[in-house]
Amino acid sequence: MNQVEVCLTPELIGQFDLTNKIVVAVDIFRATSCMVTGMAHGVKSIHPVGSVEECLELGLKKGMITAGERGGKKLEEFTIGNSPYEYMRDEFQDKSIVVTTTNGTRTILASLAADQILIGAFLNLRSVANYLSTSRKDVVIHCAGWKGTVNIEDTLFAGALIEEIKASHKRKGDPSLIAHQLYRANAHDLMEIAKESSHAQRLATFGIGKDIEFCMNQSLYSVLPEFKDGKLEAI
Amino acid sequence: MNQVEVCLTPELIGQFDLTNKIVVAVDIFRATSCMVTGMAHGVKSIHPVGSVEECLELGLKKGMITAGERGGKKLEEFTIGNSPYEYMRDEFQDKSIVVTTTNGTRTILASLAADQILIGAFLNLRSVANYLSTSRKDVVIHCAGWKGTVNIEDTLFAGALIEEIKASHKRKGDPSLIAHQLYRANAHDLMEIAKESSHAQRLATFGIGKDIEFCMNQSLYSVLPEFKDGKLEAI
Repeated sequence: MNQVEVCLTPELIGQFDLTNKIVVAVDIFRATSCMVTGMAHGVKSIHPVGSVEECLELGLKKGMITAGERGGKKLEEFTIGNSPYEYMRDEFQDKSIVVTTTNGTRTILASLAADQILIGAFLNLRSVANYLSTSRKDVVIHCAGWKGTVNIEDTLFAGALIEEIKASHKRKGDPSLIAHQLYRANAHDLMEIAKESSHAQRLATFGIGKDIEFCMNQSLYSVLPEFKDGKLEAI
Repeated sequence: MNQVEVCLTPELIGQFDLTNKIVVAVDIFRATSCMVTGMAHGVKSIHPVGSVEECLELGLKKGMITAGERGGKKLEEFTIGNSPYEYMRDEFQDKSIVVTTTNGTRTILASLAADQILIGAFLNLRSVANYLSTSRKDVVIHCAGWKGTVNIEDTLFAGALIEEIKASHKRKGDPSLIAHQLYRANAHDLMEIAKESSHAQRLATFGIGKDIEFCMNQSLYSVLPEFKDGKLEAI
């Protein structure tokens, strides 16, 4: 049986050996939820970059749509911000998006030692689980957290994914047990605890409560984005 | 109302501002459980130090009893190891113990920026809670974890303490919510989940399952050790 571990924040990723493993990068509010939504709505590729400057440069040079946020807010110079609803536009079909976000991008770029990097969200939970179940690979669920801290929504997702793959993957380490327990204790109403999270409360002050609700939808999309050669494409 | 936060591992303590706060240092398996047991049985003071060399030197120079472990095992040169049962000896009454452990000592020494450092364990849960409830200070519960990773038993204790002080202290941050939820989901049988922890399973291979059971006893002792000027003394 393969194993599944949970890294609760990128600050702790150095404690994990990613060699030959699949990393599932997750930033529920809202980077990976946006990525999954965009790919599900026909975006061709998404290019996560570390800085605002890189983002603007790629946008200009390669005609990509610029997207992202700093501190939860859209940047003036970008075409779109970090709301999944913005990723649904018809005119983005077959286009490429270059994106930079506070936590999500960092998480993906800190997972490069892995054999494969998948993008997970509640929105594509079943697809991620199905892929992992037949992968015969050990898994590390890499939670983005918030500015290096541990957060509720990514930990909840880790627990939900552990539940989905429990027939093929055994929990390893205490964080995976904590995540699994947190999910099971709240499975009857994930929105209730998600709303209690610091991140949801922070975002609510920007008037984007509907983003939070959307991001908590389970398996709305079947798309499975993979990060490879600097960009996300659907597997 | 004051606030209570949880730092899940010393690796993340840099994310917390400890100024004017009370830190509760916790390493359930087994450093802080041993300290509480020793003080409850009449030990005069306990001196946590970072290295084996310092421990042996203080033992020799000041006639202190040497205690501690590396990797969960007693060191040959020390008088006692890291089992609470070893801290109960009659001949230690009014004696001083110098101790070094893998995780517990590090946690205390990484909390020096706080206004006050208390030593918490399930064994003195009620005493810690009573003190905090009347303190009018914000609190950070600092979990030792294991080699920098997050563990179940210290997180459970954090949740139990949050539950005890909820009338005077409001949770702040997602880790405090995670810890509180974990405790509430398992309050009916803490031993069951404690036995599932990596640490308990690691220790079980050394044949010290009875230590685990002992450390999970709630409020067996009323002693409250404080770390001040390099040593622990009962408040």
